[in-house]
Order: sequence, then C-alpha cells, then structure tokens
Amino acid sequence: MESKNSLQKRLSLAEYQEGILAGNKVIVAKAITLVESSLPEDAALAEQLIEDLLPHTGNSLRLGITGVPGVGKSTFIETFGKYLTAQKKKVAVLAIDPSSTKTKGSILGDKTRMEELAKDPFAFIRPTATGQALGGVANRTREAMLLCEAAGFEIIIIETVGVGQSETLVRSMVDFFLLLMLAGAGDELQGIKKGIMEMADGIVITKADGENLRKATQAQADFQYALHLFQLPESGIAPNVLTSSAFEKKGIAETWKMIEDYKKFTNQNNFFQTNRNQQNLKWFDESFNHAWKTMLSSNNDFQKEKKELEKKILENKITPIQAAKSLLKKSILFASPKN
Amino acid sequence: MESKNSLQKRLSLAEYQEGILAGNKVIVAKAITLVESSLPEDAALAEQLIEDLLPHTGNSLRLGITGVPGVGKSTFIETFGKYLTAQKKKVAVLAIDPSSTKTKGSILGDKTRMEELAKDPFAFIRPTATGQALGGVANRTREAMLLCEAAGFEIIIIETVGVGQSETLVRSMVDFFLLLMLAGAGDELQGIKKGIMEMADGIVITKADGENLRKATQAQADFQYALHLFQLPESGIAPNVLTSSAFEKKGIAETWKMIEDYKKFTNQNNFFQTNRNQQNLKWFDESFNHAWKTMLSSNNDFQKEKKELEKKILENKITPIQAAKSLLKKSILFASPKN
Repeated sequence: MESKNSLQKRLSLAEYQEGILAGNKVIVAKAITLVESSLPEDAALAEQLIEDLLPHTGNSLRLGITGVPGVGKSTFIETFGKYLTAQKKKVAVLAIDPSSTKTKGSILGDKTRMEELAKDPFAFIRPTATGQALGGVANRTREAMLLCEAAGFEIIIIETVGVGQSETLVRSMVDFFLLLMLAGAGDELQGIKKGIMEMADGIVITKADGENLRKATQAQADFQYALHLFQLPESGIAPNVLTSSAFEKKGIAETWKMIEDYKKFTNQNNFFQTNRNQQNLKWFDESFNHAWKTMLSSNNDFQKEKKELEKKILENKITPIQAAKSLLKKSILFASPKN
Repeated sequence: MESKNSLQKRLSLAEYQEGILAGNKVIVAKAITLVESSLPEDAALAEQLIEDLLPHTGNSLRLGITGVPGVGKSTFIETFGKYLTAQKKKVAVLAIDPSSTKTKGSILGDKTRMEELAKDPFAFIRPTATGQALGGVANRTREAMLLCEAAGFEIIIIETVGVGQSETLVRSMVDFFLLLMLAGAGDELQGIKKGIMEMADGIVITKADGENLRKATQAQADFQYALHLFQLPESGIAPNVLTSSAFEKKGIAETWKMIEDYKKFTNQNNFFQTNRNQQNLKWFDESFNHAWKTMLSSNNDFQKEKKELEKKILENKITPIQAAKSLLKKSILFASPKN
C-alpha cells in the first residue's frame, strides 16, 4: 500500500526540485518518501534529484542527538527546537526509526511525538524508517538531510534511538554529536554508553529538576571528570557537560551556545571542513556498495545462477562459503557495463 | 599488539583441527581469534578451517539471549549455564561485544562477568568483538559458533547486548531466541522492545524475587496477553512467558523445559530444519558480499582508481554519487577472475 501510494503521488523531477527549493514542506516530505522507496524507478529519480540539488546543500548545521530510551530525547528536542524556531531559525528533525523487521511497520510511528514542534511553521519533523539493512540508514538519512538543506533548513537534527550501531553511522554525517544522559543510571548502562561517550562532542544531563537536580549536578561533575581521562578529540575541543530540564526550559540556551562555540572553534582550526570531507569519502564508499548491489540484483543471469546455488546449498551439495566463491567468479562474467 | 599476538600464536591448519575436534578449549579460543583477525593470511586459513570442520557442525542447540542493559543477562546466563553443566551438558557462551569504534577496545572486556561459569570445565565463555561493521558480527559470530560445535559443545548461547540491529542478525543464526525483560520498565522502553518481542520464541521476566515478585507476575500476565495479539510465528508455536530469579535459582529449569519443548515441536513440524535452511541461504548472501569486498580491496588497480576519485571528491570536481558510478564501471574491468 505504501509503495502504491508513493507511486500515485510521484511528481516530476522539476516539480520536486522547484517545491524543495521554494521550501515547500509537503514536497520535501514527498521527496523523502521517494528517496526511501525501494522501487527501481523511484531510485533513479531520487538519485537524479539528489545530484541536481547538491549545489544547494551543505549550508546547515548538522546535529546528531542520541541517548538511551527513557532519557527524554523527544521532550528535549521539542524544547530545543522551539527555542531555535522562536529565533526564526528553520529546524528539521529527522528521527531514525528502527522498523520492526517482522511487520515492516515502524515502532515509533504509532506514537505522537513532539506535537508542538510539529505544528511550528519553522519546523519540519520526519521519521525515517531504517528498513532491514543498517547501511540503508546512512544513505537514506543522509539524502533526507540533503533534501532538507536544499529546502533552506538551517539546523538539521538527526535523532537516533537506543544503543547500537546507528549512532556510529549518524556520527558519520553530522557536524556535532550530542549525547543525552540520565543521572544515576545503573553501572551496566554506563558501561554501554562509554563507546558512545567517546563519540560525543557534548553531553547534556537531562531531567535536571526537582528531586533529580542534585543528582544531575553530581553526574555533571562526574562525567566532566571522566571526559578528562579521554584523549582530546580530533576536533581539538574537549566535550562539555551541561545539565538541562526540558520541563523547566533550563539549559537549552546553554546547549545552543555550546554548539555555536564548537562551530566557531572548528571553523577556525578547519576541522569543520575536514570532518565534512571525511564524511563525503565515507558516502562515496557507501554509494559504491549500494550501486554494486543494485546492479547485480537487476541482472537476470546473476539471479538465475544464485538460485541454482541456493538449491545446491539446501541439498547439502555445497557449503554457503563455497557457493559464495563460485558466485563471485560467475558474477564477474555477468557484470558487464551494458547491464 | 592484538594482531601481533595472534600471529605469534598461529597454529597450523591440522593443529587447529585436531585441537578443536578433541574439544581443547584453548585451541577453540585461538581459532576464534584467528576467525576474528583482519589479516588476509589469517582469513584464508580461517576460511579453510571452517570449511573443513563443517561436517562436524550443526549438532548443537543454538540459543540467542537478548535484553536491554540492566535486565540481568549475565547473571541469568551464568545461573542457566550452571544448571546445564550440572547435567554434564557442554555449554559455550559467545557474548557479542560492541567494540568502541574510537579506541577499538572492547567495552565488556574490562568487566569480569560470569566468573563461576567461566571456571566450569563443561563451559566455555568468549566475548566476540564486533568491530566496526555490523555485517561482520554475523560472519564472525557464526564462525565462532561453528567452531564451538565442532569442539562438541551441545548448547551454544549467543548473548547480544543492548537494543539494536545485532538482535536481527543473531536471530538469523539461532534455533531459539530468548528475550529477557524487566517488570515495570518505562513506556518508551517497552515501545522499543516491541520489534524485538516479535522475534522472540520465548520471554523470561527476570529479577522475579522479593519486592519485585508481584510486579513480575503481573508483567508475565500482561506480556502473555500482548503476545496473543501477535500473529502465530512461522514456527507454529506461540511464545511462552516465564518468570525467573537468578538469585533464588527459580524459573531456570522451566526455561530449559520451554526450550526443549520448542525443539521437540519444531522437529516434528520440520520448522527446525526449514529455519536452519533459511539461515544457510542468508549466510551464503553475506559470504558473497564479503568475498566481493575482499577481492576488490586486494586489487591494486581498483585501489588506485578509488584514490583518484577520492581526490576529485575533495576538490569538489565530482559528487560522491557520480564517483561511485564511475568506480562501479571501472571495477568491472578490474575484477577479473585472476585477481
């Protein structure tokens, strides 16, 4: 149904381009649906659209926000987003949504999140489904980000959910990676976050209000101390730890100042651009892998050979590893430029 | 240092084989290190070893255990493992360890976990580092699993950490996927777990003791009800929900009975074998992707062309997408069977 809908609503390349460059949010949303489509005809159009819009991208501040479930990400992002839109800044929020692999439905989609920000004319909120392949996250989220940039959004927030590999991928496409943390979470929880702490450009302890305030202030001191034990990051700027209460609207302006200071500093020492360059090379790598897979999956000879090998595997005539080697040899014959 | 060590300690193919088939745990551990090595010479040896040992694999019960941080996975697995080894069953625990991408160190490695089980002569515990690529998890963990099977382990437990894509991958290589849950965790936490709940063949509510007992019993009823709303899984057997206290050693025998019942049932309706067949096809797919990448990364012409394109990207002469297309065309010329 989803793909049928997107087919019916598909626009022409020019319509997408004009709508996006005019900042039309409905068309931005449709373009993101196009980019997420798995239909080959959509893929070709999406690719062309991204390529044509590339000169209009790169001007936003790209911000990744992560934290374990329960840390209050949505509430923080809503309050933070409203703070920015109050200053007439255009803010896009792309929430990475780990789809359920079985139903193919999205877990977070059934919740109404960030209601106020969603109604804000200066804001655009969009969950992006990850599908089964995690590599897909990077490509599609990056493309959604570029579409938002072309539409004139000045701050793009990419929200990740949970503890896992998606953080690494998001880190590889943002300028600043903000980690939200809870005060007084258990030991094991803190252990898990260590790897993510090393990726953070800044940390905000959430829910620093009421009874929790003292614990949050203590946690701030603890984390700030812990971060001193880490190597100075490539950016040349040591991560700061702040406390915040989305409920009392505290620590929000301070968080924005931390990010602006980071941008100023890394612009001066040129890390801002170096980092984006490195990210472009990573994008190249991912695009190549994706292009290769697309080519093979549309090659009939390859698919036929693959099916035959699968049959042999099920009959225990060949091991999966041997079959892979055999398919690799054959694939070189199939993969001629005309395909 | 790690790779230097593994080089120094590398054995011959025959030494690995004999040691593993004799059930020598030290050699199994060394073989897993070999399989995890990223050195090309280690990879060739590892591949041959797996292929040679394949006829001796497949006889274990493969069990995946997951749950959010704090659920008490290690404690549960230790108690459960001791229950099995007390019956003279040989148990291997492979803990998937999300390495810190920055330091390349392992997060869980610095903690001493499952001390008692680790000392048990019938048990073998081994963290397997995932490295950067999540695809790598599947291949290496699967190979570690096969090595353990060849060494005569009858129950292989694959423990995953946290909420993320690694669950999907582990699900794709085990016979039974057990989800550990806490009673009374927050709403958002439950939402995240929904996708994983759909993958579970059984659920155990942990820490069902003391003050927590009443909540756990209530959660058991709630989850059992919730699972009724799901479609009957492909296995044909609806997941059961149990409570357990590792501390009081309760619910452990019941958990094992649930798994044994599942095995009996799916052996009768043939799903057990069908599932393994499907998993072998997935393994074939992953192996092919891996073989292709390995081939290109060892091709000098390809690497040279890639470097030139990277230079052009950094000079803004070409977009990452265009560069990927160009590299794809060239790679077909490079990738001849002789390489």
